[in-house]
Amino acid sequence: MLGTVLYGPGDIRCEEVGEPAILAPTDAIIKLSATCICGSDLWPYRGLQPVNEPMHMGHEYCGVVAEIGNAVRTVKPGQFVVGSFCISDNTCPHCRFGFPSSCEQREFMNRAQAPYARVPLADGTLVATPDLPADDLIPSLLATSDVLGTGWYAADAARVQPGSTVVVVGDGAVGLMGVLAAKQLGAARIVAMSRHKVRQDLALEFGATDIVSERGNVGVARVKELTGGIGAESVLECVGTQESMMQAIDCARPGGSIGFVGVPHGVQLDGQGMFFAQKSLLGGPAPVRRFLPHLLDLVLERKINPGKVFDLALPLADVAEGYRAMDERRAIKTLLRV
Amino acid sequence: MLGTVLYGPGDIRCEEVGEPAILAPTDAIIKLSATCICGSDLWPYRGLQPVNEPMHMGHEYCGVVAEIGNAVRTVKPGQFVVGSFCISDNTCPHCRFGFPSSCEQREFMNRAQAPYARVPLADGTLVATPDLPADDLIPSLLATSDVLGTGWYAADAARVQPGSTVVVVGDGAVGLMGVLAAKQLGAARIVAMSRHKVRQDLALEFGATDIVSERGNVGVARVKELTGGIGAESVLECVGTQESMMQAIDCARPGGSIGFVGVPHGVQLDGQGMFFAQKSLLGGPAPVRRFLPHLLDLVLERKINPGKVFDLALPLADVAEGYRAMDERRAIKTLLRV
Repeated sequence: MLGTVLYGPGDIRCEEVGEPAILAPTDAIIKLSATCICGSDLWPYRGLQPVNEPMHMGHEYCGVVAEIGNAVRTVKPGQFVVGSFCISDNTCPHCRFGFPSSCEQREFMNRAQAPYARVPLADGTLVATPDLPADDLIPSLLATSDVLGTGWYAADAARVQPGSTVVVVGDGAVGLMGVLAAKQLGAARIVAMSRHKVRQDLALEFGATDIVSERGNVGVARVKELTGGIGAESVLECVGTQESMMQAIDCARPGGSIGFVGVPHGVQLDGQGMFFAQKSLLGGPAPVRRFLPHLLDLVLERKINPGKVFDLALPLADVAEGYRAMDERRAIKTLLRV
Repeated sequence: MLGTVLYGPGDIRCEEVGEPAILAPTDAIIKLSATCICGSDLWPYRGLQPVNEPMHMGHEYCGVVAEIGNAVRTVKPGQFVVGSFCISDNTCPHCRFGFPSSCEQREFMNRAQAPYARVPLADGTLVATPDLPADDLIPSLLATSDVLGTGWYAADAARVQPGSTVVVVGDGAVGLMGVLAAKQLGAARIVAMSRHKVRQDLALEFGATDIVSERGNVGVARVKELTGGIGAESVLECVGTQESMMQAIDCARPGGSIGFVGVPHGVQLDGQGMFFAQKSLLGGPAPVRRFLPHLLDLVLERKINPGKVFDLALPLADVAEGYRAMDERRAIKTLLRV
């Protein structure tokens, strides 16, 4: 079958790869309905994360179960399923505490930019829908696997409450999903920090009430102006650079919370600065599995439409153009047809 | 009158200083019932914080109102009062959000190692007791001003809940108060990390259920053992060094919370490390004013006895011995009679 492999910065290829097989009795094989390219795939693509050997890419997926291992009990061939990009058993103490992304058996999904994928710990990781969903729901269901779940976690970690004032730093797909999540969680005011018209428009559609196009200290000053000099209760950091992290921290009010989901690259935090800032910080790989049943309900009931974040759809064979379009910010997020 | 002045590392003197006077109509002058030496006073005393000019020391206080400015409405001469080491107006948005230690008008109290002290923003900062308290309650009432309020905030920031497992890093006075706070907040298990018999005993008296005398990685491994390999929901960091901060973070379970109240000195946090650790972090100068009414009730009803943390009491004139005893860890905390 075809799969995507990153050989080095800028060098992503669609080529023949081996078909996945059941390796452990807890595995399932999924025939993907669609897959996509993640913002985090751009770190190694841009050379900002080392590529020591060819990397098989892809960790967002949904589709129909093709085969299961002997020990799998909760899903069966023919069912439509979505799983998190974090593989988890959903039974260990960390999973039960709501943090399946720190599961004792955690693995990160990969090789999902392909027509078939192996999902380890299928019982813990996958959630089946009651019926086969309508085709037009596939992009939104795919979004729950990572990008929506991650934006949702950013809002959860930032303790968004009904009525809160929320700032979202980052207008990538995760940031836009953070806007949607904040809206669903009842935020009264949602400030999206974005300089790009297309993304601003989508943020407004997803529930943003204000757009701030400035960045850094000027952007922070603008947020302060919008919040009566106070800052926001909740800030979602969806980028992962030193500048974006400081922008997020500075936009929060004392006692406010920052949920950070952009994988930090080169970010250092000064302890004394954090002390006097007096702001709560929680990040990490999103515990998507915790949110999946609720997110699937919202999509299946057509209450949310996160699939709109895919503004480019390509056949898997054109994956290189998908990466390029996202790298050059011509596309917010690329769906791959398999 | 006499007051204490730090001239440089190790050079603390009790000498004649000017009496305080009302400078703003919102000021009050307090005749102190007692004052004390704070663990944070040791940073400049030890040369770990610069002393660029003679520093008038002391920020923990309780006593009887001697005089008030024209604008003061909520306390009057003759009343017994306690105030936070953080001066606050108790009306600004940050105060109303529960963070008076980030008050828009915040000042840090000083010159309180003396018989009289000026308290700015008296209406916002001071809380009066219904009657003049019994003499034997003075140490406990004094403790609420900072050391108990700070330990309490550590537990609050670490989100201690009824039934939780809590670890306290640091066996100084604040750490011991953190143990007391965790107990009051209903923690089921409280692990005090301490190598000193006297402090271990006091920790047990305040409610610790387990003592871990190891530090660093060995201490963390011991905490993991005690918690079935999981770590604690809540960790109170009450020291402020790189080692203690990492120890605190490593003792928490994924999704757990660290409340840090030791003023960080030279602490740097790696963003990516914090991301994958997936633990919540909130610190800062304690918003003691938020907790004061409750803490005063607990003391006046004799439900807690935080004053036991003072294991040395000296006349103000012997302040130098008080600093030495704490520096050499011969005393946990020194009360000064004025």
